Amino acid sequence: MTTRAVDGRIPVGVLGATGSVGQRMVSLLEGHPWFRLEEVAASERSAGKRYAEAVRWVLPTRMPAEAADLLVRPAEAGSEARILFSALDADVAGPLEERHARAGHLVVSNARSHRMDADVPLLVPEVNAEHLELLLRQSFRSGAIVTNPNCSTIGLALALHPLHQRFGVERVLVTTLQAVSGAGLPGVPSLVALDNVIPFIAGEEAKLETETLKIFGRLGEGGIVPASLVVSAQCNRVPVVDGHTLCVSVSLRGAPSLEEVREAWQTFEGEPQRLRLPSAPPRPVLFVEGDDVPQPRLHRDAGDGMASTVGRLRRCPILGYRFVSVTHNTVRGAAGGSILCAELVVAQRRIEGLEAPEE
Amino acid sequence: MTTRAVDGRIPVGVLGATGSVGQRMVSLLEGHPWFRLEEVAASERSAGKRYAEAVRWVLPTRMPAEAADLLVRPAEAGSEARILFSALDADVAGPLEERHARAGHLVVSNARSHRMDADVPLLVPEVNAEHLELLLRQSFRSGAIVTNPNCSTIGLALALHPLHQRFGVERVLVTTLQAVSGAGLPGVPSLVALDNVIPFIAGEEAKLETETLKIFGRLGEGGIVPASLVVSAQCNRVPVVDGHTLCVSVSLRGAPSLEEVREAWQTFEGEPQRLRLPSAPPRPVLFVEGDDVPQPRLHRDAGDGMASTVGRLRRCPILGYRFVSVTHNTVRGAAGGSILCAELVVAQRRIEGLEAPEE
Amino acid sequence: MTTRAVDGRIPVGVLGATGSVGQRMVSLLEGHPWFRLEEVAASERSAGKRYAEAVRWVLPTRMPAEAADLLVRPAEAGSEARILFSALDADVAGPLEERHARAGHLVVSNARSHRMDADVPLLVPEVNAEHLELLLRQSFRSGAIVTNPNCSTIGLALALHPLHQRFGVERVLVTTLQAVSGAGLPGVPSLVALDNVIPFIAGEEAKLETETLKIFGRLGEGGIVPASLVVSAQCNRVPVVDGHTLCVSVSLRGAPSLEEVREAWQTFEGEPQRLRLPSAPPRPVLFVEGDDVPQPRLHRDAGDGMASTVGRLRRCPILGYRFVSVTHNTVRGAAGGSILCAELVVAQRRIEGLEAPEE
Amino acid sequence: MTTRAVDGRIPVGVLGATGSVGQRMVSLLEGHPWFRLEEVAASERSAGKRYAEAVRWVLPTRMPAEAADLLVRPAEAGSEARILFSALDADVAGPLEERHARAGHLVVSNARSHRMDADVPLLVPEVNAEHLELLLRQSFRSGAIVTNPNCSTIGLALALHPLHQRFGVERVLVTTLQAVSGAGLPGVPSLVALDNVIPFIAGEEAKLETETLKIFGRLGEGGIVPASLVVSAQCNRVPVVDGHTLCVSVSLRGAPSLEEVREAWQTFEGEPQRLRLPSAPPRPVLFVEGDDVPQPRLHRDAGDGMASTVGRLRRCPILGYRFVSVTHNTVRGAAGGSILCAELVVAQRRIEGLEAPEE
Repeated sequence: MTTRAVDGRIPVGVLGATGSVGQRMVSLLEGHPWFRLEEVAASERSAGKRYAEAVRWVLPTRMPAEAADLLVRPAEAGSEARILFSALDADVAGPLEERHARAGHLVVSNARSHRMDADVPLLVPEVNAEHLELLLRQSFRSGAIVTNPNCSTIGLALALHPLHQRFGVERVLVTTLQAVSGAGLPGVPSLVALDNVIPFIAGEEAKLETETLKIFGRLGEGGIVPASLVVSAQCNRVPVVDGHTLCVSVSLRGAPSLEEVREAWQTFEGEPQRLRLPSAPPRPVLFVEGDDVPQPRLHRDAGDGMASTVGRLRRCPILGYRFVSVTHNTVRGAAGGSILCAELVVAQRRIEGLEAPEE
Repeated sequence: MTTRAVDGRIPVGVLGATGSVGQRMVSLLEGHPWFRLEEVAASERSAGKRYAEAVRWVLPTRMPAEAADLLVRPAEAGSEARILFSALDADVAGPLEERHARAGHLVVSNARSHRMDADVPLLVPEVNAEHLELLLRQSFRSGAIVTNPNCSTIGLALALHPLHQRFGVERVLVTTLQAVSGAGLPGVPSLVALDNVIPFIAGEEAKLETETLKIFGRLGEGGIVPASLVVSAQCNRVPVVDGHTLCVSVSLRGAPSLEEVREAWQTFEGEPQRLRLPSAPPRPVLFVEGDDVPQPRLHRDAGDGMASTVGRLRRCPILGYRFVSVTHNTVRGAAGGSILCAELVVAQRRIEGLEAPEE
Repeated sequence: MTTRAVDGRIPVGVLGATGSVGQRMVSLLEGHPWFRLEEVAASERSAGKRYAEAVRWVLPTRMPAEAADLLVRPAEAGSEARILFSALDADVAGPLEERHARAGHLVVSNARSHRMDADVPLLVPEVNAEHLELLLRQSFRSGAIVTNPNCSTIGLALALHPLHQRFGVERVLVTTLQAVSGAGLPGVPSLVALDNVIPFIAGEEAKLETETLKIFGRLGEGGIVPASLVVSAQCNRVPVVDGHTLCVSVSLRGAPSLEEVREAWQTFEGEPQRLRLPSAPPRPVLFVEGDDVPQPRLHRDAGDGMASTVGRLRRCPILGYRFVSVTHNTVRGAAGGSILCAELVVAQRRIEGLEAPEE
Repeated sequence: MTTRAVDGRIPVGVLGATGSVGQRMVSLLEGHPWFRLEEVAASERSAGKRYAEAVRWVLPTRMPAEAADLLVRPAEAGSEARILFSALDADVAGPLEERHARAGHLVVSNARSHRMDADVPLLVPEVNAEHLELLLRQSFRSGAIVTNPNCSTIGLALALHPLHQRFGVERVLVTTLQAVSGAGLPGVPSLVALDNVIPFIAGEEAKLETETLKIFGRLGEGGIVPASLVVSAQCNRVPVVDGHTLCVSVSLRGAPSLEEVREAWQTFEGEPQRLRLPSAPPRPVLFVEGDDVPQPRLHRDAGDGMASTVGRLRRCPILGYRFVSVTHNTVRGAAGGSILCAELVVAQRRIEGLEAPEE
C-alpha cells in the first residue's frame, strides 16, 4: 500500500465502481485536492475490462478521462489504495469490507452491512463527527470502517440536527418521495416506474427509523446509545431521476416559534464547515422561502449537491411543526457523503499516517 | 325544463364541459341508464362551437358521438336540463350554480364554492348519505345544490369511514402524492412537472383538513356539526397522469388489531351498494395484499375508477396505524363521484319529480 | 392433448406467461369465446408456484381469477393445450417452440426466432392471410408454427398495406418513438429512461427493414419472395408506457392525391374483419383528423388496442407522402396480434381438427 | 445609452426575461466577461416588480443575485443597455425589436419575427459568420438586429454544416424528438405531455425546412440566396425536460466513407473557436462512439450546453447516411446561441463603438 500518490495526494479506490453510486464516486473524485483515484473494482463480470467498457455510464457529466482507462479489478483482490470507497451491494459488502479493513485500508462504505455495528461510526460529518471516536475501538490496526447512512436518512438527519441540538426532537413522522437513482442499476424497471408511485422501498423505512437514532445517539461504553426519539417512516418511489423529497412532521421540546426554527437552520454549521473540508458545502442546510419549494429538480444541486434544502415550515396540528426537505440522494446521500466522511477522518487525523497533502 | 328525455331518461347538462373534469363527466355519462346528456356549457370563448371543436380532448377513451355534435352553450345561459353537473372553475362557480339552483335545477357541483355552506351537503354517498336531509333546508324550491368534496378528500374519506364507523378515528396525518390531472387544464406546465415533485397544491391541505370534518359530521340545527377529529395534511404533485396516492397515519379508538382494521374495510358497504346505484362499485374500498401496493397505475381503475384501494396496513410507532390508499381523482374523486351523488339524490327521491326511469 | 375444454372451447396455454407480453396474453384470453386458458408456463425459477405468486403483474387490469390459481409449468414440459402462445425470450424460444410444434401443438409465437424461416408465416392477419398456405409445407404433422412480427413492424405493416395494395409502396423511411413496455421486464431501467430518449433498440431497425418485406412478399416455391421495397428505420425508446409512434415518409406509385391516400385507409378491411374474428377490430386502420394526433396516450386503446391509428397525412418534399401512426405495442403489436393470428388459423381451418366452438 | 458599465463590460438587457429562455439568458449572463446584465424587461404584468418576484424560476441553477434585485421594466420602454437580448414572444417581438434597433441598440433576438427578413442575419456563428455582412444593409444607424434560428434548426445546422462544407448536402429528412422546455412557459400542459408523444409543434417543421436553407445560403444582392438543398422535417414533443434529439437521414455528394464523414465532424471548428469567444465550446460538434448515444440526458450539457453531440452514424438505404444528434435547446438552441451571436458581432467589430473590454 502506498501512502502518497506521485502528486502527493492520497491514493484511493472505489469498490463497486460500475453501479450508479460508484459512478458518482468516480465522478466526484475527479480533480479532488486530497484524493487521487487509482483503482476501480467491481464484480468478476467486469474485472479485467477498461472501466469505460465495463460501465454503463448514466451521469450527465462526462466520464473522467483518468478513470476511463483504469482496468477494473475484482472487488475482493488486494489493493494498493490507502482509502477504499465502497459502493458494493449489501449482499457482498459485509465480509469484503472487513477483509479490506483488516488489510489496513480505511474503508468508507455506503453499504448497509456494518452501519449498525457497535464499533462502527454511522457518520454524517455535520451531525456526529465525535462518533469517529469509535475508530479507537475497532480492531483493524491501521485499517478502519466508517459508514455513511442510507440516502434518505442523511437528508432527514441534516434537517433535524439543528432542531434537535437547539430544541430537542421527540417524534418524527416522515413520508418520503424518493428518486429512482436511489435504487441503482438496473433498479426499478421503467415499465413499473413511469406514470406511477411505488409506495414501498425494501428495508428503507426500517433504516430511517433506526439509523436516525444511532446518528443522534451518544458515545457509550458498548457503542452508541441510541437517541430517545421516535421516527415513523413511509417510503415511496416516484418518477424523479435524482433528489429525495421528505415531508416531515415533528414535535419539538420548548415550543419554539417558527422564526426560531428557521433561525436554527440558517445559523447552523458543522465540523466540515469549520474545518473547510474540500467537499463541505458552505451551508449544510439551506432554508428557502416560497410556497412551493423545495423541489427536487430545482434544489437537488444546491451546494454542488452537498446541501440539504428545507422549506414550507409551518405548524402541524398533530405534531407541532412540519416542513419539506430535498437532498441529492446520490451526491450528499451517497457518494459525496462518503467522500466527506473520508475528508473528516483525514482532517481530524483519526488514522495514523493519513494526512491531507500540504497545499 | 323537461323532466324526461325522449327515451325516458332524465335530461342532464354539464357546466364547464371542456375542462378535464368536464370531459370525464361527458365520458361517464355516455350510455348512462338514468341520465341523458343533452347540454354542454362552457365559457364564452367556447360558446357556439360544436363540442368536438371547442374541447382539447385528453382522455384515452373516444369522445362520445352524441356529445361531439352538441353546441356548446354559455354556462350562464338558462338550461332545459333537469340536472346540471358543474365542473366550473371555483372563481365563477359560486353565483352561477346558485342561479341555476334558483331556476329549479339540481346542481351537483365539483367546485369548492358551496362545499362549506351550512345548508349544502358535502356528499360521499357511501359515507354520509343522510346529509341529504340538508336539502330540505335549502331555499331553492324545486332546485338544489349538492357538492362533491375535493378529489383527495374523497379518497381519504372512503378509506377512513369504515374505521371511523367501527372504531373511531382521532388523529390523521396524511401526505398526498397527487396526479397532474387533478390540476385540470392547462394545469401544471410540463416543464415544471417532469422529473420533479411540487410539494404544494394551493388550498388543498386546508380542504383535506376541513372538508373531512364536515363529511364525518352529524346533522345539527345550524347545519353539519363537524366531527371532532384532527387532520394534518401535506400535499404533493407528482408526475403521474391519474390517481392520487395517500400515505396515512391514523390513531384509532379501542386499539383494534390489524386484522380487525382490515376486516372493517373488507366488509364495508354503503348506501350506493345497498341501492345498487348504476355508478356504485361493487365494493367501495378494496384491500390489496402485497408489499408494494396499491399503486396509481395499477389500481386507479379498480371498480371502473369508482373504488378506493387500500393496502400496506401496518403499525405506526407514533399514531398507531398506517396505510396507503389510491383513488382515481377525476373519476371517483370528481366526475364519477358527482354522478354517484346525483344517482343517490334520485334513488332516495330527495327532489320531487326526479325519479329514475322504469327499467 | 385435449381438443376441447369442458366448456367446448379450445384449451390453450401461454409460454413465458410471467413477462409483460405473457401477462397481456393471459389478460386478453380472459373470457375469450374460442380459447380457454388452461396452462401457464415460464422459466424454472417460476415453475411450481401459483401464477399469482410467480408474476410481477404490471397491467392496470386485474389479473384474471382463473389464471391466478394456475400452477406455473416449466416451459419445456409437455403440454395438454391445443394451442400454445409463445411470449418466450428469443434466446430460448427457437428450439422450445419447435419441440412443441413437433409434439402436435399449434405454436403462435411472438418471439423472433422463427420469423424468417422459409416455411413459417410471418402473419399480420389483415395483410397477408394467404401466407398461411405455408403451413402445408411445415413438417410438424398436426403441429405448426405461426409467428407474429415485431411490435413496431406490425404498426408499420398495417398503415402501409392499404397504400401498398392500392398504389404500390416503393421507399419507406420510418423513425419510431417506442414505449418502454416493448422492452418487457425488467427492460429499460427507469434511471436510464426517465427524462431521456434512447436512440437505439437492439435489433429493431433490422427487423423493421426485413420483416416488412416478408410480410408484403408473395408465396413462391422456396418460401416467401420478399417485396421489392426499401425500408430505412431509425428506432428510439421514449418515456411512454404503452404505444409505439411511427413517423413515416413514403413514396407511392401513381401519384395519388392526399384524399385518395386517406380513402385507402378509411375503406380498408382485411380477412379478420370479413370473418368477424373475435379479436378483430371493426376497422384495422383508423384515420384521425387534427393537427396533433395520433398520440400514444389518446389512441393506443383504439379498437380495444387492436387498431392502428394514422394521421397528419401531408406531402413530404423528399419521398412524396408522410404521416404518423400509433399502435398499441403489447396488444396489437404482440399479445393481441398473436391471438388474432390463432383465430385466423382456426377460422380458416388451416389445421385439421382445430375449429371454433359452435355458438 | 451607456457604452461601458462601471466595470468596463458592455451593459446588456434581456427582453422577455421571465420566460424560460429569458431565464436561461439571465443565468448565462452571470459573470460574463464582456457583458453585464443591467436590465430585465417583460410584459406589463411583471413590470415594476423585483425580478425575483416576477419570475417563476424553473432552472436548477440558482437565480443570479444581481438579477434577483433588478426591477422589471416594460419591454417597450426605452433602454440604457447597449445590447438587448430578446426572448420575447413572437406575437410582440417584431415591432418592439425594430423600435429598439432604431433607437440604437443591438438587438439579438431569439424570436422568429425577423429571421427571414432580407437584411437580417440568421446566425449560427460556427456556420455563417460572414452573413453579418448584412448588418451594413440595415437602416438602423448604430442599432441592428441579429437573429438566432429556431432551437431545433440550430442543432441540425451544426451537425450538417461540416458535411455540407466538405461534401455537399442534397436532401435531409429529419425527425425530431423535442424537449418540453422548447415550448416555454406555460407551454405544454403536463396532463398532455406525460406518458405521451405529441407529433406536432406549431410552425416548427416549416422553420426547419426554410431556416436551414437561409443559414446555408450565400450573400446575394437582395439578401441571402437560399442553399439548394431540400429538408423534410417531422417534429415531435416528448416527455424530456431539456435537449432536442434529431434523427437525420441525409444524402451527400461524392459518396464519402463513414470514416470521412466522422472526420469531417471531428476536425470541424468555426469562427467562434478561432476567435476564442467566451461562450464558444472548444469543439462545436462532438462525435460519440457507442450504439445507443447520444442521449439528451447524458449529452445535452456537453460543452456547457453549447456543443452539439452526434453519433450512430451509419448507412441509410434510402438517402445514404443517417445519424442522431442531441443539442441543448435552451442553451445552444436559444439563450446561449444568442449570446454567442452577440460575442461574434463584438469580436468582429461589426458595430461601431461596440468592443470587448480589454482584459
